[in-house]
Amino acid sequence: MSRQLSTAKLLITCQDKPGIIAAVTNFLALNKTNIVHADQHSMQEENESLFFMRLVFEYDPKKVAVDQIQQSFEKEVASDYGMQWHIFEDGDVKKIAILASKTDHCLLEILWRWRSGEINADIPIIISNHSSLESEVKSFNIPFHHLPIVNNQKEKQEEQVIALLKNNDIDLVILARYMQILSKSFIDEYQNNIINIHHSFLPAFVGADPYGQAIDRGVKVVGATAHYATENLDQGPIIEQDVIRLTHRDDRRKIIELGKEVERSVLARAVKWHLEDKVFIVGNKTIVFN
Amino acid sequence: MSRQLSTAKLLITCQDKPGIIAAVTNFLALNKTNIVHADQHSMQEENESLFFMRLVFEYDPKKVAVDQIQQSFEKEVASDYGMQWHIFEDGDVKKIAILASKTDHCLLEILWRWRSGEINADIPIIISNHSSLESEVKSFNIPFHHLPIVNNQKEKQEEQVIALLKNNDIDLVILARYMQILSKSFIDEYQNNIINIHHSFLPAFVGADPYGQAIDRGVKVVGATAHYATENLDQGPIIEQDVIRLTHRDDRRKIIELGKEVERSVLARAVKWHLEDKVFIVGNKTIVFN
Amino acid sequence: MSRQLSTAKLLITCQDKPGIIAAVTNFLALNKTNIVHADQHSMQEENESLFFMRLVFEYDPKKVAVDQIQQSFEKEVASDYGMQWHIFEDGDVKKIAILASKTDHCLLEILWRWRSGEINADIPIIISNHSSLESEVKSFNIPFHHLPIVNNQKEKQEEQVIALLKNNDIDLVILARYMQILSKSFIDEYQNNIINIHHSFLPAFVGADPYGQAIDRGVKVVGATAHYATENLDQGPIIEQDVIRLTHRDDRRKIIELGKEVERSVLARAVKWHLEDKVFIVGNKTIVFN
Amino acid sequence: MSRQLSTAKLLITCQDKPGIIAAVTNFLALNKTNIVHADQHSMQEENESLFFMRLVFEYDPKKVAVDQIQQSFEKEVASDYGMQWHIFEDGDVKKIAILASKTDHCLLEILWRWRSGEINADIPIIISNHSSLESEVKSFNIPFHHLPIVNNQKEKQEEQVIALLKNNDIDLVILARYMQILSKSFIDEYQNNIINIHHSFLPAFVGADPYGQAIDRGVKVVGATAHYATENLDQGPIIEQDVIRLTHRDDRRKIIELGKEVERSVLARAVKWHLEDKVFIVGNKTIVFN
Repeated sequence: MSRQLSTAKLLITCQDKPGIIAAVTNFLALNKTNIVHADQHSMQEENESLFFMRLVFEYDPKKVAVDQIQQSFEKEVASDYGMQWHIFEDGDVKKIAILASKTDHCLLEILWRWRSGEINADIPIIISNHSSLESEVKSFNIPFHHLPIVNNQKEKQEEQVIALLKNNDIDLVILARYMQILSKSFIDEYQNNIINIHHSFLPAFVGADPYGQAIDRGVKVVGATAHYATENLDQGPIIEQDVIRLTHRDDRRKIIELGKEVERSVLARAVKWHLEDKVFIVGNKTIVFN
Repeated sequence: MSRQLSTAKLLITCQDKPGIIAAVTNFLALNKTNIVHADQHSMQEENESLFFMRLVFEYDPKKVAVDQIQQSFEKEVASDYGMQWHIFEDGDVKKIAILASKTDHCLLEILWRWRSGEINADIPIIISNHSSLESEVKSFNIPFHHLPIVNNQKEKQEEQVIALLKNNDIDLVILARYMQILSKSFIDEYQNNIINIHHSFLPAFVGADPYGQAIDRGVKVVGATAHYATENLDQGPIIEQDVIRLTHRDDRRKIIELGKEVERSVLARAVKWHLEDKVFIVGNKTIVFN
Repeated sequence: MSRQLSTAKLLITCQDKPGIIAAVTNFLALNKTNIVHADQHSMQEENESLFFMRLVFEYDPKKVAVDQIQQSFEKEVASDYGMQWHIFEDGDVKKIAILASKTDHCLLEILWRWRSGEINADIPIIISNHSSLESEVKSFNIPFHHLPIVNNQKEKQEEQVIALLKNNDIDLVILARYMQILSKSFIDEYQNNIINIHHSFLPAFVGADPYGQAIDRGVKVVGATAHYATENLDQGPIIEQDVIRLTHRDDRRKIIELGKEVERSVLARAVKWHLEDKVFIVGNKTIVFN
Repeated sequence: MSRQLSTAKLLITCQDKPGIIAAVTNFLALNKTNIVHADQHSMQEENESLFFMRLVFEYDPKKVAVDQIQQSFEKEVASDYGMQWHIFEDGDVKKIAILASKTDHCLLEILWRWRSGEINADIPIIISNHSSLESEVKSFNIPFHHLPIVNNQKEKQEEQVIALLKNNDIDLVILARYMQILSKSFIDEYQNNIINIHHSFLPAFVGADPYGQAIDRGVKVVGATAHYATENLDQGPIIEQDVIRLTHRDDRRKIIELGKEVERSVLARAVKWHLEDKVFIVGNKTIVFN
């Protein structure tokens, strides 16, 4: 509305109880903010009733201090309900590292959407275990780090990757067809902050060569799945999935081409929702307020 | 949660102002209800900022009287904000009349979903200007009224239809490929409560024979549109649309077959959302909290 | 074109060699028929190059005897190429038996489309192990056989089913959510002529309760698969698949409702393609000339 | 099969008569070629019965001279049936010019698919009336011609464009959101060889600002249409269309983002089918053998 207003997002997870929404929205009203968007969901998960909420509110930064709101919210609301919560302010732009290998389609899709302003993030580094994509992404002016796996020393290379991520304060790691299995410690370090794209409709065709598996099984539809990486390969919480139709005329080369399109769009959607703080993780599932 | 709890829905439309959500949710919390689901949307429409909200709340009918809530809500909240609002209680089951002509697919789809419990409504009457479908719907045990147009006296027949609707306290009229243009007075009488299914992706192919128009234009996709009937034919607020792909091999007979499927599912979705009070009408558009 | 013309379909499978199409089409031209539609496909399957063809041709029954064409074709063309082939004439309408259990949606979908003329077949019998759907399908005037499994004697009931199928010269068995596992001998008896609908996107969620499995895995899309029944449950050649999107808001009841729609349409398409002789089975896969 | 074999495509249009398929395939068999793929379609168009065929055949270039096949085919087959026909050989790679304006998504999509080998063509020139995209496409190493419209002299600029197209022997012009209306003489010069992408589901929302029109009408689905450019804006033969769903939450900025994705994929499919000689134009419609 007015140009001087700022926007912030409040994310809440807690056990479901009567009065939560009123307590939260009342707090925000009393603190001179205006809720412009609200999403809420309750679900049963293993005998617990869980509550999830995402609120977007506007405020006048001259009259309202978010720091103080944070302190008051913990004291006056969150502690009563045992809430896990976080406020993201306008300026909290996430830092992304994209890890790629030899195929370019997922990498380029993210970069295009970032350059066009559709993906709102900083991308300080691109990392690849191969050098082949370096020239392709040159025009994006993002440092490209070629970290090859030398003498099969995967651990050593992973250490280099993690060091780079840390030096650049990376919030989100995108595995844009990176093709390397990450160690448990890597995944723990960036838990819930690594998004992988798998080129099948999970849980069908887990593991290597999903398109080959799809051809062998004679399916009429193939898909792609964007999920958070966990220790168990291809088992992490699914953020987004989509499919495309095949016919008997589509050979492996054609399926790969068709698949690229759905991989690109599924990954891009998942990344955008993550960056907009629209994804909640509950055990092995996600709630996506899109 | 507990079996003794009842559920009600609160729908609100008003000009957007700070504090509405807090005011409403606070009121509900103070009145011993628990919000289990909330949807809200704000939009600009012709220089106005409008606010729409749909809340589902639980309450213990032994402790809470909805009548009294209604009175208090008007006094304590709604009047301050100039709200248009309505509370629907569990028992407020809408009464549907289905108007059909000679084709059965939309009629049967609604009846079948109603019998399976998917569509939650009473259907006291089916009306048709032809008798041909009477035997097909016999097993549903719903009175079938054959009201033919005699000597081209359309007005007279429409009067009979309206009389039947009134005698049966009809809330929602479904035009299941009824093929008759309704008079302005009929539409005014049931404003925002007549759902029509048009067999095209509106606004493409307005008017008669949309599939013929689609064939002539050589489109690769055809669709169906469920919308509220207004005085201007095929111009009413759109509730739902969907499409199916064609190829050059699909002739008119095949397109009609394919079209039936999308008509059935689009109409069924629109009817369900209307019955669940998930549709708000804003000028010529709808907001659907699905 | 002229009304006195008849139509027939010629289906061919053989090893791929140069000149097949010319040999076949030349034969048909010399025998005074006119090809109105042709589909052909070649594929590699386990080191063999296989050829599949489906031709629709018109002929004047006063001038051309299909019996004689059949004899000549075997001698002059088919034997040279080692073809498996079949000619279906206009009057070769297939006989269908529908096997159902307690849920009605797949059964009714097939019956509706049959009554409207969209499914071109005879349906002399409906068989169910429960009596609950009998009244629902009464208006279709098809004998409903209630064959319950008594004292857990599954084999005995299956014998009764097979006897009924044989007495009625059944060509195609549709398992419209029949929920019973068929014995190997049943499947062998009707090999490639039993179509099952599985309510998941196979090979994901094989076996019982696929929607429960889908909820547990947190997928964002569910599907349905129509396939030929084989001895290995849910492993037979897939004819058609399709999917629908879920959100976190869709609980089990809602997923079942959404799933019904995709099951109905996937099964109907598979049945229609089978009846139109458009499906070729190659090992565990299908070629569908749709 | 063998590595020494070449492949060619034969495209035929003529009035439908008995024996065409046999005549053509027999000719090809006698001339030592092997048909590996065949598509055929017959349709009624304004009292004429038209026949369309696309054949892919293999031959040994050491034994078969395509030049001679061409001469014989005209004499022995084509002239009898009054065929319009063309043979495309392996080496007949089409030359594309892409015309863009300020938005990059359609341009980049084509270039990226071209670089990955998915689009098989030469792209000797990119032309734009603005210079803004020059740096973005630098890495593709294709000459970028900035031809601005100076002093509103559209004709002069168009002359420059046409001169460039002619100097580069361009076969196909892609209007990748070029935003300029072409003159009749331009369109005549490249008749049936100019593909435009319109960001709506034609014939809905013809003309300027289709997304604005879509918002005003409150549609639940928007689309994109790739069509051959004709003198009548947005009226040319449609090659491909697709759609995406909207909700009331999607504002103009979001619709533009969603729309880009469907524009990109619809345009890419249309271009690929054109380049593979899979599109036949019949009056205002297309037959696409995909």
